[in-house]
Amino acid sequence: MMQVPLLVGSMLEHAETFFSKKEVISQTHDKLHRLTYKEIGSRTRRLMSILAQLGIQKGDRVGTLAWNHHRHLEIYFAAPGMGAVLHTINIRLSPEHIIYIINHAEDKVLFIDEDILPLIDKIKDQLPTVEAFIVMTDKNELPASSLAPLYSYEELLSTGDETYPFTTQIDENDPAGMCYTSATTGKPKGVLYTHRGIVLHSLALGLADSAGISEKDVMMAVVPQFHVNAWGTPFACTWFGSNQVMPGPRFTPKRLAAFIEAYSVTITAGVPTIWLGLARELEQGDYDTSSLRAILCGGAAAPLGLIKTFEKRFGIPFYHAYGATETTPLVTFSRLKSYQQNLDEEGILKERSRQGILVPGLKMKVVGNNGEVAWNDEEMGELLLQGPWIADGYYNDERSEQAFIDGWFHTGDVVTVDEEGTIKIVDRTKDLVKSGGEWISSVDIENALMAHEAIFEASVVAIPHPEWQERPIACIVLNDGYEDKVSKETFITYLEPQFPKFWLPDDILFLQEIPKTSVGKFLKRQLREQVKAHYQLNE
Amino acid sequence: MMQVPLLVGSMLEHAETFFSKKEVISQTHDKLHRLTYKEIGSRTRRLMSILAQLGIQKGDRVGTLAWNHHRHLEIYFAAPGMGAVLHTINIRLSPEHIIYIINHAEDKVLFIDEDILPLIDKIKDQLPTVEAFIVMTDKNELPASSLAPLYSYEELLSTGDETYPFTTQIDENDPAGMCYTSATTGKPKGVLYTHRGIVLHSLALGLADSAGISEKDVMMAVVPQFHVNAWGTPFACTWFGSNQVMPGPRFTPKRLAAFIEAYSVTITAGVPTIWLGLARELEQGDYDTSSLRAILCGGAAAPLGLIKTFEKRFGIPFYHAYGATETTPLVTFSRLKSYQQNLDEEGILKERSRQGILVPGLKMKVVGNNGEVAWNDEEMGELLLQGPWIADGYYNDERSEQAFIDGWFHTGDVVTVDEEGTIKIVDRTKDLVKSGGEWISSVDIENALMAHEAIFEASVVAIPHPEWQERPIACIVLNDGYEDKVSKETFITYLEPQFPKFWLPDDILFLQEIPKTSVGKFLKRQLREQVKAHYQLNE
Repeated sequence: MMQVPLLVGSMLEHAETFFSKKEVISQTHDKLHRLTYKEIGSRTRRLMSILAQLGIQKGDRVGTLAWNHHRHLEIYFAAPGMGAVLHTINIRLSPEHIIYIINHAEDKVLFIDEDILPLIDKIKDQLPTVEAFIVMTDKNELPASSLAPLYSYEELLSTGDETYPFTTQIDENDPAGMCYTSATTGKPKGVLYTHRGIVLHSLALGLADSAGISEKDVMMAVVPQFHVNAWGTPFACTWFGSNQVMPGPRFTPKRLAAFIEAYSVTITAGVPTIWLGLARELEQGDYDTSSLRAILCGGAAAPLGLIKTFEKRFGIPFYHAYGATETTPLVTFSRLKSYQQNLDEEGILKERSRQGILVPGLKMKVVGNNGEVAWNDEEMGELLLQGPWIADGYYNDERSEQAFIDGWFHTGDVVTVDEEGTIKIVDRTKDLVKSGGEWISSVDIENALMAHEAIFEASVVAIPHPEWQERPIACIVLNDGYEDKVSKETFITYLEPQFPKFWLPDDILFLQEIPKTSVGKFLKRQLREQVKAHYQLNE
Repeated sequence: MMQVPLLVGSMLEHAETFFSKKEVISQTHDKLHRLTYKEIGSRTRRLMSILAQLGIQKGDRVGTLAWNHHRHLEIYFAAPGMGAVLHTINIRLSPEHIIYIINHAEDKVLFIDEDILPLIDKIKDQLPTVEAFIVMTDKNELPASSLAPLYSYEELLSTGDETYPFTTQIDENDPAGMCYTSATTGKPKGVLYTHRGIVLHSLALGLADSAGISEKDVMMAVVPQFHVNAWGTPFACTWFGSNQVMPGPRFTPKRLAAFIEAYSVTITAGVPTIWLGLARELEQGDYDTSSLRAILCGGAAAPLGLIKTFEKRFGIPFYHAYGATETTPLVTFSRLKSYQQNLDEEGILKERSRQGILVPGLKMKVVGNNGEVAWNDEEMGELLLQGPWIADGYYNDERSEQAFIDGWFHTGDVVTVDEEGTIKIVDRTKDLVKSGGEWISSVDIENALMAHEAIFEASVVAIPHPEWQERPIACIVLNDGYEDKVSKETFITYLEPQFPKFWLPDDILFLQEIPKTSVGKFLKRQLREQVKAHYQLNE
């Protein structure tokens, strides 16, 4: 067989050629853009020529601080397309972490959204590797800024070469992209994505039994393009010719709902908190969502109540997927097997609440206290992964050896596996409550609580206990109007029939809000501190 | 990303693990077998251990002479799974070609179906490299044969080790399989398939916009397992957990129709002649084919009338795909794009009669007399291909340099391309009729003729002409009952409005049968000789 490398640039080349009329619909600060893949292709080629002019060479890191829009998509292909590395920076991180990341990656240029410019203005003196700043704006004039040299994206593009070729002078194992984990402890850790990894991952996203991304799809990725390549959807959707809808900066649930209706979105992807917000909006407003064939939910387990709302009330199939920054990210996808189609409503919802089976191309092991666990949906163990789109280490980071051991990535996620091979995330290794020698899944209790009509969000953390080592405490946020109708006892009574007695939280705290990470996951480290402070347990 | 090779063995490992209950339904000479992937996995592991015992080493060729059944499937995975090379031999070739192929590949063992044993008995003395013969039979006793050493497949398996591991001590670019072209001229040419090529090709088959092979599918591959790996379907279907139905030796259209109904087949694959036969059977019998979501047709262009019969009369979607032995084989797949869904019936059938667009992962060029052709569906050119599942040469064959030039495989197929990038095969380079400096597509005339109700099959060949260089002659086989109702003039009159005057055949010959290759394609070389003899034009 021919030695033809798997390269990211060739994916856009395919779209330019075979899906030239298909569209990217992109909301920026000022207006709505509609561009065909032919136009995206020309603009990306112009951008590659500009990057070359700016002195970007093979392997150089090209940083982005941007929302979901077409210019961000163009950089997705332009950077790896000319041999450089796309480095998407999580704009929700603290300035300290952003400085750390840019310096650690040694970004040579930064592409910055207009509204993020002030943030970079403040930290510019701490970014010695950055040689040029490019602001992405629809306006004719550059915004006021002390950054220098500062260029306008569109002005640069206007002088670019639209025939600039995608390089083939690279190896498929060369890096194409990178992303830092949104660390809950310590400094963020960098993950490099190779061309090979991204291309194979895109194929996995196109499989009929995973996301099945198709030319017929209209994808609205709500997951940020600055977070694990928006789960790889911009790559796969471009390659397979789907229309893409990009909700742009500071979108609201209202905008998401309106876009679904306006652009006949068929598939959308995001974290549970996004879907909680969308569900509320759909309940209040009058939207036609009949085009939607799938909501993909990842990043955290969705509560059963939320799944029920979408599947039963709105008639929208709701699929769990599971992955991590280190896994490009798709690892498992939850679909009923053919012989599970006849399950009753309860059974189907139960399956839907699981994270699914491994996508083809990867290998997994689940290791508990006593080696690999039995697939009985009871024994808990840490999920270990191996495969061509799984990282083999963190970028220039000695913490690699803690997570990458003997060729396996230790995810830090605790799962059970049923006899079908379907996994269910029960916790993070560090969030498990270890009580009297037994393991208690904080996530299981959270999900049970969130299925209660009075509860909007719930998070369970461990606090130290003199006798039992640790004990669980539940923190909840109530839905509006329930303040006077429920008490701690309401929820303990509600949980009692569902769990062994020793699983029941020792206390239930009512909060206004649960602290979250920049990508919407519960920030348990911070919550644990809050709870310990509440009980004056701080060491 | 981890350096994890793409290996064929891991595909069955995935099926054993995640689709252990799914089934292979296999018809052999004596009975119908039903085996789960768990059983197929154990048996394949046993077989690997047996191959090792027989002295098969990394890179050795393991020959098969067999129909479509589960044992053949097991060898599909056992040979590459332990590092050897699966060599499927086309049992319909002449004994001379079979001898040539076995010797050229230097097969070390041969797995032989019971009914093919007599053929090998006759040629055994000309097979110096073969060290062992294994007969695949359900019977307890070995059939009478002079082959030695001769083993029983099941007896060997019973002593095998069902924990034998799939090797990981190979490179993804190592050969996993091989197949010889069914040559219409000269000796057959060998093509090696690498592990990487087969795995990537399988992913392409699983994409929603190509075959979309899924766990929910029940695949009946009618295309022989001895021909380009049954188009790769056994690999992809196993990996993705589809049930597989294998129609076994010497199947009839009746058996195919009965199997579709009995096993709720959802997708089936084969050449046009198979579908001509099945259409006749479905018209005569009373079969429930409602489970079928797709007929995949390749190997040759299906006549429009046939497509119409399946799509309109039987309500079964009929998809063209295109490929060759050298391309693993999937190259293009014909699906309507989203914005073509509203075409009228005529428009849809026209699209269905094309071979479709390139699957993701490959590149193509179409080169005519004056370089790359315009995509206007008029200019004809030869299709050139590049990609990781396209061969880079023939195995130990100096004819490689005629077809593999500057990194491109020259398919020998002449196509037009429309503005959507959809190709239409108009001819083989060697079958084009070159008349007065213009090209006439023999295939276009054939398809027009085969759309006529009186015609069962039609083939058009060129004969030498003193003035025009070449002129087309049409050879047709009538449907039953039309002998006295039609004449040459009927068909010339029928063709006149459809083509330029110079395209019209100079003559129409009525035949009882059109000679075909071992895989059901028209054997034009032989037909051309027949026609020339008819006109006493033989040089």
